[in-house]
Amino acid sequence: MTGPLDGIKIVDLTSMISGPVATMLLADQGAEVIKVEPKNGDIVRHVGFGDKGLTGTFLTVNRGKKSINLDLKSESGKEVLKKIIITADCFIQNFRPGAIERMGFGEEEVRKIKEDIVYVSISGFGEEGPYSKKRVYDPVIQALSGLASIQSDRETGRPRMVRTIVPDKVTALTAAQAITAALLAKERKGIGQHVRLSMLDSMINFLWPEGLVHLTFNREEKFSPDKKLSQDLVYETKDNYITVGAVADSEWEGLCISLDKEEWISDERFDTPTKRVVNAPERFHETQKVLRNKSAEEWLKIFDLHDVPCAPVLERSALLEHEQIIVNEIIEEYNHPTSGIIRQARPAAKFSKTEAKIQSPAPLLGEHKREILLDIGMSEKEISEL
Amino acid sequence: MTGPLDGIKIVDLTSMISGPVATMLLADQGAEVIKVEPKNGDIVRHVGFGDKGLTGTFLTVNRGKKSINLDLKSESGKEVLKKIIITADCFIQNFRPGAIERMGFGEEEVRKIKEDIVYVSISGFGEEGPYSKKRVYDPVIQALSGLASIQSDRETGRPRMVRTIVPDKVTALTAAQAITAALLAKERKGIGQHVRLSMLDSMINFLWPEGLVHLTFNREEKFSPDKKLSQDLVYETKDNYITVGAVADSEWEGLCISLDKEEWISDERFDTPTKRVVNAPERFHETQKVLRNKSAEEWLKIFDLHDVPCAPVLERSALLEHEQIIVNEIIEEYNHPTSGIIRQARPAAKFSKTEAKIQSPAPLLGEHKREILLDIGMSEKEISEL
Repeated sequence: MTGPLDGIKIVDLTSMISGPVATMLLADQGAEVIKVEPKNGDIVRHVGFGDKGLTGTFLTVNRGKKSINLDLKSESGKEVLKKIIITADCFIQNFRPGAIERMGFGEEEVRKIKEDIVYVSISGFGEEGPYSKKRVYDPVIQALSGLASIQSDRETGRPRMVRTIVPDKVTALTAAQAITAALLAKERKGIGQHVRLSMLDSMINFLWPEGLVHLTFNREEKFSPDKKLSQDLVYETKDNYITVGAVADSEWEGLCISLDKEEWISDERFDTPTKRVVNAPERFHETQKVLRNKSAEEWLKIFDLHDVPCAPVLERSALLEHEQIIVNEIIEEYNHPTSGIIRQARPAAKFSKTEAKIQSPAPLLGEHKREILLDIGMSEKEISEL
Repeated sequence: MTGPLDGIKIVDLTSMISGPVATMLLADQGAEVIKVEPKNGDIVRHVGFGDKGLTGTFLTVNRGKKSINLDLKSESGKEVLKKIIITADCFIQNFRPGAIERMGFGEEEVRKIKEDIVYVSISGFGEEGPYSKKRVYDPVIQALSGLASIQSDRETGRPRMVRTIVPDKVTALTAAQAITAALLAKERKGIGQHVRLSMLDSMINFLWPEGLVHLTFNREEKFSPDKKLSQDLVYETKDNYITVGAVADSEWEGLCISLDKEEWISDERFDTPTKRVVNAPERFHETQKVLRNKSAEEWLKIFDLHDVPCAPVLERSALLEHEQIIVNEIIEEYNHPTSGIIRQARPAAKFSKTEAKIQSPAPLLGEHKREILLDIGMSEKEISEL
């Protein structure tokens, strides 16, 4: 193992996305993550695109982890989990509130086994309140957090979902940071504590800086931004879609020169940043008219010359060939023992001295059972009896 | 201060969103964050909704920090920054690649002042390559990362932006976690290193688990998911919009019973999870027809009875009154010295022993200048001469 979290051991009872993506990040950074699965495995092994048992999503969100599958209803399964917990720095679960206590691994029980462990609980809505026991899926949190409203159709006002599971993954990032902070507090001050977070709280935090910003001021009760929607900066050219934008005056000047519309620089509809916001629909419409006259590539070259922020709107498969993405070496290929050559995005944050990387492929169900049992001191005889 | 990062000191030269949201999270967790601003302050003080100098966005993303404004082109400004760096554990900047070196505070220079500091650089596209020196805005990264393509209009295929700045804020969360991990490595192993990340890399990572999942398998080159879009789980009722979904068989049964359409349970179009995905448009259409017959409140009660995942689609202002959001106490009100009563979302992750919280309001420009200068050992005389 390498990485800033080298030497940290995590017992991971989470399934689906919010928990596994959090521990994926920690595994990439060198933590030893023991993924404890039910007898038939995490449901993500079986649902979605790719090979059953190792779908594309499972391969991604569980890379670098060790798998052991246990029947936690049996005494022998419980005993094994207890022995693993003794060796761990962190315990993480994302069952519905109340479930982990019924399984016998609530905070109190776990702390009896390992006093200073960092105990982490991820919930959908919080541990109390009318929604706490409800089933949760990503769209439910998009609806409740205001995201579906923010994404409403501009003409009809009909709410719309974002087509990637933002709440699940934002919760994962929030959790990964909080776990790391709790591990740091444990290291510095010997504190072992319970870290709790919900998808709903994580999303409200995520949206607040601008998506929910009007709620900041008490005096703005009457201001309804729900209908006030910004323009999409997506333009058609002669061939492909591009995005181009100008906030600062210097960028606006660059844009006008690029479009051969220098008269717009002093046009009273557009001559300050505020007016450009107020008259955005007109600005957008006029810009669009001009952009239809050349190809995407031609326009992007011209905008680059004048330092105007711009990019092609890439279809997903086009990411593989994009010049900047290639230079970044963000997409890696490696040979998976059973799935063949697969691609993954390497960890985004690069550490100059403790390299974070994809430490190993996602595990087959129970792949590391024997290794894990030996690690916790069980004999070959005990293992074969299990 | 309280929080898991109590005792950590961060010198923060970042502006806009990606850097400030990262250090906001760290400040909430008890780190001392010295926000070093240019003479006229971070541009976010002046752009957007709310009071000039303290917009709603600025109030949010810079809460809990101390502000000092310095002219870093002057020798005296540089000297002050150097003295602050001596006292810090972490230095973070998000200028365009190359700029911080020209300012005299590249890694090498900073390490001469404080050898084991965690040095953090956030960029838009990466530090090398054809895009590295380009200006960046959030929509540019939405376009390049595939997000705008994922959000394409279902009928026309026209790419669409997500109307909250996902790349900026995902980068912030990725950065906050990476910084915390580097601080942990420093604590455990005495390693001071350079952490680098880009918005583009952060977003490709964020989208990979399902949004870019088809790129995982090499053999799927010909599969184009760009046109294959899932349904939006937004339904109209007699009054308001709701979301309701059913993935597992038990949930589907609950949904059918709730809709009084028990015949759908054995309907051969819908009787397995896979068929429900294949026949999603039909399922959606049929469900929508039934849902128009009752109010949102009536339906949500019925679905809850049958344990079917559901929620109202809230307009943003409605968050303040929602029963679960109230129980969570996620939205806090406090009195800001100059802006009056303001609301903020408290930190999502709750720590049982080292409480994370909004430590103090966002600072006025230069508010803590004197305090910071005294802290680094300057005399009243030197301060008044500055």
